[in-house]
Amino acid sequence: MTTPADVDAVTAANQELYEAFEVADLDRMEAVWDDADDVRCIHPGWPVLVGRARVMRSWSVLMANTSYIQFFLTGVTAEVEGDVAVVTCEENILTGIEDPEGGLGGSQKVLATNVFRRRPQGWRLWLHHASPVLAPSETDS
Amino acid sequence: MTTPADVDAVTAANQELYEAFEVADLDRMEAVWDDADDVRCIHPGWPVLVGRARVMRSWSVLMANTSYIQFFLTGVTAEVEGDVAVVTCEENILTGIEDPEGGLGGSQKVLATNVFRRRPQGWRLWLHHASPVLAPSETDS
Repeated sequence: MTTPADVDAVTAANQELYEAFEVADLDRMEAVWDDADDVRCIHPGWPVLVGRARVMRSWSVLMANTSYIQFFLTGVTAEVEGDVAVVTCEENILTGIEDPEGGLGGSQKVLATNVFRRRPQGWRLWLHHASPVLAPSETDS
Repeated sequence: MTTPADVDAVTAANQELYEAFEVADLDRMEAVWDDADDVRCIHPGWPVLVGRARVMRSWSVLMANTSYIQFFLTGVTAEVEGDVAVVTCEENILTGIEDPEGGLGGSQKVLATNVFRRRPQGWRLWLHHASPVLAPSETDS
């Protein structure tokens, strides 16, 4: 059963993932992720990265190559089953990178699935899967 | 703890998702998914679809518009935490659709995250998130 307190705690953990990236704080990013070797991360268009060392290195590289990034999350939905929580959300992203295609002007929409595990110290990220939205939104169909 | 029996059962449930699509059997697809309104499905490039009715309609449309499709799964990794299982896999897809870009010749690679819940009747799909791989594989880096 999903309690309001669970949803609040999971939503806060989810928000922390994006804030850690926004301020490029690798220590905070390391605290977001579960301290386990079965963590998995799929950045948009990337292959799956498995294991804490590999996942953390990818965030370090992304932070080093991002001058500015801001996330506006919409459609945040959290469901809890036992000690696992599944969050989906739309990442509406503003970046300092100029879009070479010219179409989106440095903004883009990405869909994310974030799966958390309940640990003694709180909810920790187990899997992050982010992918670009190419089709019109659900409400357009 | 992830037991070998759990992994086998989850892997079989994961395989059934793809076989149901290959043979375009909507009844089998309906049995794959959990009978719950919080199921979520993200097809490659699509927005998130929430709820059993909407998710099932999307599969029905995909089946109706696919003359031939075959999945070769690689990198299937299943981890269980309590009554939730998280599977990631690479969907190596052959379709009957000619690729208008000419580059891939009807084959493509998609990454999927499939989250299952343990139910009295077995593992049932709670969330499917599939997205195209655009970057070189991990082993190339």
